[in-house]
Parts: sequence; structure tokens; C-alpha cells
Amino acid sequence: MNKVSGAKLPDGAKAQRVYLSLRDQITAGHLASGETLPGEQRLAEQFGVSRVTVRRALDALSRDGLINRQAGSGTRVCGQSAQGTLAAMDFNTLLPHLVEMGQSTTARLLSFSYARAPETVAAAMGLRSEEKVQIATRVRLTDDVPFSHLTTYVPAEIAQNYSENDLATTPLFKLLERGGVQIEEAHQTVSATLAAPDVAEALDIAVGSALLSLKRVVRDVEGNGVEYLSGLYRPDMFRLEMPLTRVGTGSARHWEPSIGRREEASK
Amino acid sequence: MNKVSGAKLPDGAKAQRVYLSLRDQITAGHLASGETLPGEQRLAEQFGVSRVTVRRALDALSRDGLINRQAGSGTRVCGQSAQGTLAAMDFNTLLPHLVEMGQSTTARLLSFSYARAPETVAAAMGLRSEEKVQIATRVRLTDDVPFSHLTTYVPAEIAQNYSENDLATTPLFKLLERGGVQIEEAHQTVSATLAAPDVAEALDIAVGSALLSLKRVVRDVEGNGVEYLSGLYRPDMFRLEMPLTRVGTGSARHWEPSIGRREEASK
Repeated sequence: MNKVSGAKLPDGAKAQRVYLSLRDQITAGHLASGETLPGEQRLAEQFGVSRVTVRRALDALSRDGLINRQAGSGTRVCGQSAQGTLAAMDFNTLLPHLVEMGQSTTARLLSFSYARAPETVAAAMGLRSEEKVQIATRVRLTDDVPFSHLTTYVPAEIAQNYSENDLATTPLFKLLERGGVQIEEAHQTVSATLAAPDVAEALDIAVGSALLSLKRVVRDVEGNGVEYLSGLYRPDMFRLEMPLTRVGTGSARHWEPSIGRREEASK
Repeated sequence: MNKVSGAKLPDGAKAQRVYLSLRDQITAGHLASGETLPGEQRLAEQFGVSRVTVRRALDALSRDGLINRQAGSGTRVCGQSAQGTLAAMDFNTLLPHLVEMGQSTTARLLSFSYARAPETVAAAMGLRSEEKVQIATRVRLTDDVPFSHLTTYVPAEIAQNYSENDLATTPLFKLLERGGVQIEEAHQTVSATLAAPDVAEALDIAVGSALLSLKRVVRDVEGNGVEYLSGLYRPDMFRLEMPLTRVGTGSARHWEPSIGRREEASK
């Protein structure tokens, strides 16, 4: 599973673009193991680059062990798909749920400050225009491999109930409830984005890699925003699982999220 | 909202990479409207490119109306965030729910064939190794702008109940239930990926743009896989909304997805 992390990029921006795109299709399972890749000429046309550029990208994929090039019989995919992803979202705790055994997650605090919230955050939380928030950025790792980059915003008044050190060791969630906040609801919006240079460095991936992006607003019983989370997740390390059940009869039949019990607990 | 679609890319692969990354941060709201961008020198360092390259990327962003460059006072973000996204997932229908009024979605059938399912699809659906499936690729548009690229796999036996023309006009879902399939449950996995050349062309975006990726396995009452969907969604046009409610008391307090009623119906 570490094939992708820390892989050496090919030289040249064009070759990197082709490399990232093909690597992504392999790890996401769009190009399945055993499948034959199009020829160099066809790939060159698809991406609008030269054959030399394609060859450089394929060399790098071959070094990563994701493809197998054999003279005469073409290039075959030998990478695993993202089936073996390590962490998923547990909807009971809103914390990463570890899919494989014997793993634990740790967090590293990258930055910590008090400032006015960015406009979009203030609007989503319903803050007064002058209200200060605590802004903390953390990276979460499993077995020392970073999988998420989390920036949280908490009104300064609430944030005073816990320390910088608490943040590095305890999920923010638990700190809020420990501090007496009565959490009532959360709204999550899920999207995708490209890794910017600072995030790419923190997550040990190439700039321009695809990331799952999650925005979450948490409100207390009075409807006040108590936490805003902007989370970025490596798709090769993390996924969002959503089981649904079809319920009701006749024309009232519709989907509902299934509430599954999880056996493993996340730390 | 059409600022992003069909925008002219800057020349040069490096400038395109910088452009896509900054554009993505602006449309996703990570760089908020009114915020000042780092200087050219700083951006050049962050991305590991020359100042000339940065300038080319900024020129393109300026042409798109996403930034405003003023001599002396730096470069300010003037783009809107993705708040105005058009479609979201409706969990009652598993169809795109249109957020704004007066919109309708249409579908365009790109390809249609019968073949053996790819390994990952066959495994997820629990198909026999020789079983043929119908493979259909459609693009879904709203007001003529493409927002999703959907590939569906349906066992040939079930697919014979509807025509190629049905597929272009009616959600697959409805076709299955109309054909007598008793749908019981679905499992969705959400991730992120980069736009490959063919998908980029169909969605009218740049190769290497970030896409929200959704895989869905739908099963009937007997647990047989009746549909596998691989969906790719433009994050500037589509989002996944997940409202959650905190329920239970004491140590049993946990999150559950809220089942909200939607007023608008998707077509």
C-alpha cells in the first residue's frame, strides 16, 4: 500500500501529468490489474504529448511496480486497486474507522493560532463579524503514513476549555463535549480538490494529486456553530463508505442510510 | 458559474499545473474572495517553478475573472466559492437533486455494449466469471453543461428488459424497478480522482482536474448485484450533502444520518 506514497516523480511537468493521471486510474481501479494499457502512440495522442513524454511516465509507473512492460506483449497493469484502503469514515464517531487490524492513528499539530475566521467559515458557522476563532491544522497518520490534513475553526470562547496539547492527542470532538458543549447536529459536504503545495508536502504526495475534500459544520442544541472542519483526505488511504437500504412500499419506496454497527473502534 | 467551464488554459504544462491548483483553491473556497494571494516569488517557490510560469498562470486566472491584479496592492481573489453548486445527491432517489430552481437535467449516451465485466466490477457484484454485462456510459448535463460521467454495469439478463433509447431518457434505477427487479440495498464508496483525457473531454474540463468519484453496488432482495455504477462528478457543479444528527444519551450518544424531506424533485 506504500507503493504510491513517496514515489519518485518523473522529470518534466508533462510526464508528471501523464504519470499522475495513469497512477490514479490504476490505484482507483479504473484500470484493473491484468488490463493492457493503450500503446505509447495512443497514449501520446490521448494526452496531447510526445511519445518520449509517455515513455518517461511509464518508466516511473514501472519503477513503482504499478505496470509491467514486456517487449512484444505490451504494458500490463499489475497494481492493486484501492480496495485495501486503510481508513474509512465511521458515522457513529465521525472519526476514521480503521479497516485493517492492528492499526492506530496519531495526529501531528502543524499550526495553531487565534484569528478572525475566513469569510466562508464565518458565514457557515453564523459567527458575528468580529468574532475570533481558534484555527488549528493537524495531519492524521496511520502507522506513520499521513492520510488526512484537517483544519478546524472553533469560537475562541469554546476553545479556551482545552489546550494546544489536548489538540495533538484527543479528537476535537471529544474535547468539545468534555468542555460541556451540547452537540446536536452536523452538516457535511463532500467534494474533490487538487493538492496545493503546502498540503502535498504535509501528506507526502505530489502537488496536483486528487484529494477527497470534506467540509463539516457542527452545531449545538441552540443552533450555534461550534466547529468548522475542512478536511482533505488521500484517496489511496481513505474512503467514505455509505451503505443505503431501500425502505417503504409502493410509490413511497425510497433510500435511507443504513446505520451499521462497527466492531472495531478507532483510537 | 460558467467561469470555470471551457476556460482557456495557459500555455505550458507547468503553468497549467499552477493555474489548475490555484483555480481549484479559489472555486473550492480555500482561497476566499477578497483574500490576497502570495507574491509571484513566493508562489514560484511554493510550486517549484519560475516567476514567468507563475505570471502565465495568473494571467489566465485574471482572464477567467477569478483574480484581480493591481500594481502596488497585490493580487486579490475575486472568484466565488463553490457555494453556488448546481446539483447535489438526493438520498431518497439516488439522483441528482437540483439546488437552484428552473433547472432540468438531461443525459447523453456516449457508449453502449455487452461484454465481460472488468475484474473489480465482477468481484463487487458477485458475478460468475463468464457472465456478460451491459456497459453503458452516459454524461448528465444541466442546462447543457455536463456535470457527471456515469458508467453502469448491469447483468445482461436484466438489461434485456430495456432498450438503448430507454437508457438515454430514463434513470437506470427506474428501468430496473420497472423490469421487476426488487432492489434492497446499495453500498456507495466515495473518493476523488483526476480527470483522464476521455473523461475530461466529455465533461468539458482540463485533463488533470479533480473529480468526485462515486462507486455504487446495488443489490436485490436475494443479495445479487443488479447494478454497478462508477460515477465521476465535477466538484464545481455537484456536491454530496450529508446531514447528521447526534442521538441517544450518555455514552450511547452517537451520530446518525438525518433523513430530510426534499421539496424539489429531480427529473
